[in-house]
Amino acid sequence: MNPESVKSLKVGICGLGTVGGGTFALLQNNQDEIRARLGCDIEVVAIASRNLDAANWPGVSQAASDVFAVVNDEAVDIVVETLGGFDPAFEVVRQALANGKHVVTANKALIAERGSELFPIAHKHGVCLAYESAVAGGIPIIKALREGLAANRIEWLAGIINGTGNFILTEMAAHGRQFDDVLQQAQALGYAEADPALDVEGIDAAHKLSIMAAIAFGIPLQFHKTYTEGISHITPEDIDYAAELGYRIKHLGIAKLSAQGVELRVHPTLISKKRLLANVDGVGNAVVVHGNAVGSTLYSGPGAGAEATASAVVADIIDIGRAMLAGLEQPLLPALGFQSLRGEIPVLDIEEIVSEYYLKISAQDKVGVMAKISNLLQQHAISIEAVIQKEAVSESVPIVILTHSAVEKQLNQAIAAIENLEDVNGAVMRIRVESFGGK
Amino acid sequence: MNPESVKSLKVGICGLGTVGGGTFALLQNNQDEIRARLGCDIEVVAIASRNLDAANWPGVSQAASDVFAVVNDEAVDIVVETLGGFDPAFEVVRQALANGKHVVTANKALIAERGSELFPIAHKHGVCLAYESAVAGGIPIIKALREGLAANRIEWLAGIINGTGNFILTEMAAHGRQFDDVLQQAQALGYAEADPALDVEGIDAAHKLSIMAAIAFGIPLQFHKTYTEGISHITPEDIDYAAELGYRIKHLGIAKLSAQGVELRVHPTLISKKRLLANVDGVGNAVVVHGNAVGSTLYSGPGAGAEATASAVVADIIDIGRAMLAGLEQPLLPALGFQSLRGEIPVLDIEEIVSEYYLKISAQDKVGVMAKISNLLQQHAISIEAVIQKEAVSESVPIVILTHSAVEKQLNQAIAAIENLEDVNGAVMRIRVESFGGK
Repeated sequence: MNPESVKSLKVGICGLGTVGGGTFALLQNNQDEIRARLGCDIEVVAIASRNLDAANWPGVSQAASDVFAVVNDEAVDIVVETLGGFDPAFEVVRQALANGKHVVTANKALIAERGSELFPIAHKHGVCLAYESAVAGGIPIIKALREGLAANRIEWLAGIINGTGNFILTEMAAHGRQFDDVLQQAQALGYAEADPALDVEGIDAAHKLSIMAAIAFGIPLQFHKTYTEGISHITPEDIDYAAELGYRIKHLGIAKLSAQGVELRVHPTLISKKRLLANVDGVGNAVVVHGNAVGSTLYSGPGAGAEATASAVVADIIDIGRAMLAGLEQPLLPALGFQSLRGEIPVLDIEEIVSEYYLKISAQDKVGVMAKISNLLQQHAISIEAVIQKEAVSESVPIVILTHSAVEKQLNQAIAAIENLEDVNGAVMRIRVESFGGK
Repeated sequence: MNPESVKSLKVGICGLGTVGGGTFALLQNNQDEIRARLGCDIEVVAIASRNLDAANWPGVSQAASDVFAVVNDEAVDIVVETLGGFDPAFEVVRQALANGKHVVTANKALIAERGSELFPIAHKHGVCLAYESAVAGGIPIIKALREGLAANRIEWLAGIINGTGNFILTEMAAHGRQFDDVLQQAQALGYAEADPALDVEGIDAAHKLSIMAAIAFGIPLQFHKTYTEGISHITPEDIDYAAELGYRIKHLGIAKLSAQGVELRVHPTLISKKRLLANVDGVGNAVVVHGNAVGSTLYSGPGAGAEATASAVVADIIDIGRAMLAGLEQPLLPALGFQSLRGEIPVLDIEEIVSEYYLKISAQDKVGVMAKISNLLQQHAISIEAVIQKEAVSESVPIVILTHSAVEKQLNQAIAAIENLEDVNGAVMRIRVESFGGK
C-alpha cells in the first residue's frame, strides 16, 4: 500500500459483544488521540454480528448479520475478530487472512488451540494476526515479551491471569468466606461464566499461559500439554495457615525453561506475601517475567472488561496501521516473535517438576503421629521447612507442613504413604509453593 | 537497505562504562537468543572510550579512544551512546544522526534536556533515536506508553523512578534510620553518586518524568518546568506517622493532564499502603499509567544496573534491526509517539495544583492550640480528614493532620498563618498525599 494514499484505515468488526462493542466505542471516543498518534483516521466501515440491527449502528456503511460479509468486504483492511469460541471464529480468521487482510483477535482459545494453523496462513499472505488482547486484557504483556524483553533469554514467567479466580481467592482471604459462596457472588456480578470451569479450573489461564510461554521461550503453542488444577478445593483454613506461614494463595500460571524441558502449569500456589505478585488483588491480573539480563519485571492491570480489552485491540490496530503507513509489505516480526521455534524441548510431566509444598494433614490426636509423618517424608528424601500443629478439633488435629524442594513424584509417594497411616484421616491437602529461585 | 543483503547489524558503542560494557557483554552472552528472534546477528564492529585499551576487547575490529571514530565509521549502522552527560554525548549523537546512523542512548539527561534539538535531526535523516533505557532501566515503559497504550488518552502517570531514593526511603521505613545514615550506606554500596543531589533532590527523576510525560500526553519535553523537591527532609517520625494513617512515603514523579494544564512534579508523597506502588521496595522502580480506556496499569522492575539497562539498550537495537530487515526507509513511529505535539498546554505552577496534604506541626502543650490551628485551616477553606495528636515531648506536642483536597497556594497561606501562631514552634512539615482519584 502506498503510504501517501492512506487517508484512513478501514476496519471491520466481527462480533459486537462486550469486546467488539467496546472496540467500536473506543475508536469513536478516542479518535482525536488515536489520529494524533497514528497520523490518520481509523474508520469502522463494516460490522457483523448475529441478530444485528443496523439501525443501532449509524455511520457504519455495512452492517450485517453474516460475519463473512465483513471478511469478504473489499473495503476492509483489518478484520477485528471478537466473536469468541471456534465456530465461526476460526473460519472467519482463516478466510480474512487468506483474503490478505490483517486480523486482530481477542480470542485466547483460538490462538492457544489453533494458532499453529493460523499463523502460517498469515505468514503466507504477508499479513498480521495480532492478539495482544487475548492475554491479560489491557496489559501490554505480549509486546513486552516479544519486543521489550527481546534481548533476554526468558527463564520463567508466572502470572495471575484469570481475574475471576483472583477475585474469589481475594474475597475468601479478606472475609474467610467459602469458595462456593464467593463463586455465586462472582456469577451474580457477571465476572464468572455460567459454567465457571473455564475460570476456576484453570482452562482460561492455560490458554493464556501457553501463548505467553510460546513467545517467551520460542516454542510451539502447547495448550494441550499444560497441566491445570483448579481452586475449588481451597478452603479459608488453607488461606489462614498460609498467611500464618507468611504466604498468600494465588491461582498462578507458571512457565519455566530448564535444561530438562519446559514446565507449563496452572494451579493454586503459595507465594510469599512480600512479593508484589502476592498483593495483586480482586479482578486484577499481573505477570512477572524473569529474563537472564533484566531480572524480574512485573506487569499488572485490568485483565478483562470491555474498555480494557478494547485498549489492547486498538493498540494492535494502531501497530498494524503504523506499519501500513510506513509502506511495510510484510509484518515487522513473526507472530510468536521468533524467526524459528525451538520444537525439540519437551514439556515436563507434572510429576517431574521440583517444587516446595504445603501439606495439610488431618491426624488423630495421638502421641507419635508427627514422628511417623516426619519419618515417611524423610524416607522419600523430603525435608521439612516449617510445621504448624494446632489444638485438636474433636478427635483430629490439623498438621500443616511446609517442605523444602522435592520432586513431585516423590512427594506424591510420600503423601500416599502418609494417607495409609492408621492415625491419618482422609486425604492430604497439597498445594505447591513457589519461591521463584529466591526467598 | 535491502533486507536480503543484511547478514548482520553493525553496532558501534561509545562509552564502555557500566551500561556500555553491559551492552557489549549482553550482545555476546545472548547472541543465540537474539539471533533466533531477530533473524540475523548483531555484531559490535567498533567501540570507543577514554583510555580504552584495545587489548581488552578482542574481536572488535575498531577500538579507539576517540568516540567520533565510531560516529564516522562507515561500517557502523547503529551507534550506542552510553557516555552519559552532555559533552561529548550531544555532539556524538548529533553527528551520528547527521551521518544517517540510528542511535540508541541510555542518556536520560540528554534526551530530557536536549531531545528537542536531536529528534528533528533524526527525523530529517530518516533514522531512529531510541531511548528505552533512559527511563526506568530494564522496564519497557517507553514502549508501553508509545505503543501498548496508544489507544488511550493518558490522564496521569506516577512512578518511583529513582532507585537510590527508593532504597533510602525503604531502609528508613524498615529500620527507623535517619536519611543521612542510609545515604552514606547507599554511597558505599555504589547506588548513589558521590554528589547525591541528582538522586535525592529529584533531578534524575525529573529527567525521566519529563520524557514519560511528553510521550504520554503528546507535549514537548519540559524538564526545566518540572517541579522538584527532594527527600532529605523526611524523618523516620514522618514515615511512622504516615504508616499510622495507612500510608507509605515514596519519592514520586507525577504527571497529570487536565483542562487547566499539565502537572509535572517530583516530590515525596504519601500513598495508601494498599496500593501496589506503595509496596515497591528497595532499588526497584515502578510506574503506574492511567489511560481513559484501560484504567491503571503498573510496570515494575530494576531501574538501574548494567544488565537491566543493557536489556533495554539491546531491545532498542533489535527494534531498529527488525525495521532494517523489513526494508523500512524511515522510523515506524515518531520519537515521542505523536505525529504532532500539543504545544499549547501550559505546565501548571506548583501553587496551582490541588492535592491532599500531610502536615506535621510542633506546638506548645497548651489548651486551645488545636482549635487555633483548625480555625486557620478553615479560614483558608481547608478541611481536615484525620488528626494524630501525641503525648507531649518536653514542652512541645507534635500534631499531625491529613487534609482533604486543597489548592496548594491556599495551603501555603494557611501554613504561614499557622507558623505565625505564638504556640507553634518552627516550620510546619508539609508532604503531599496522592490518592490517584480514588481512595
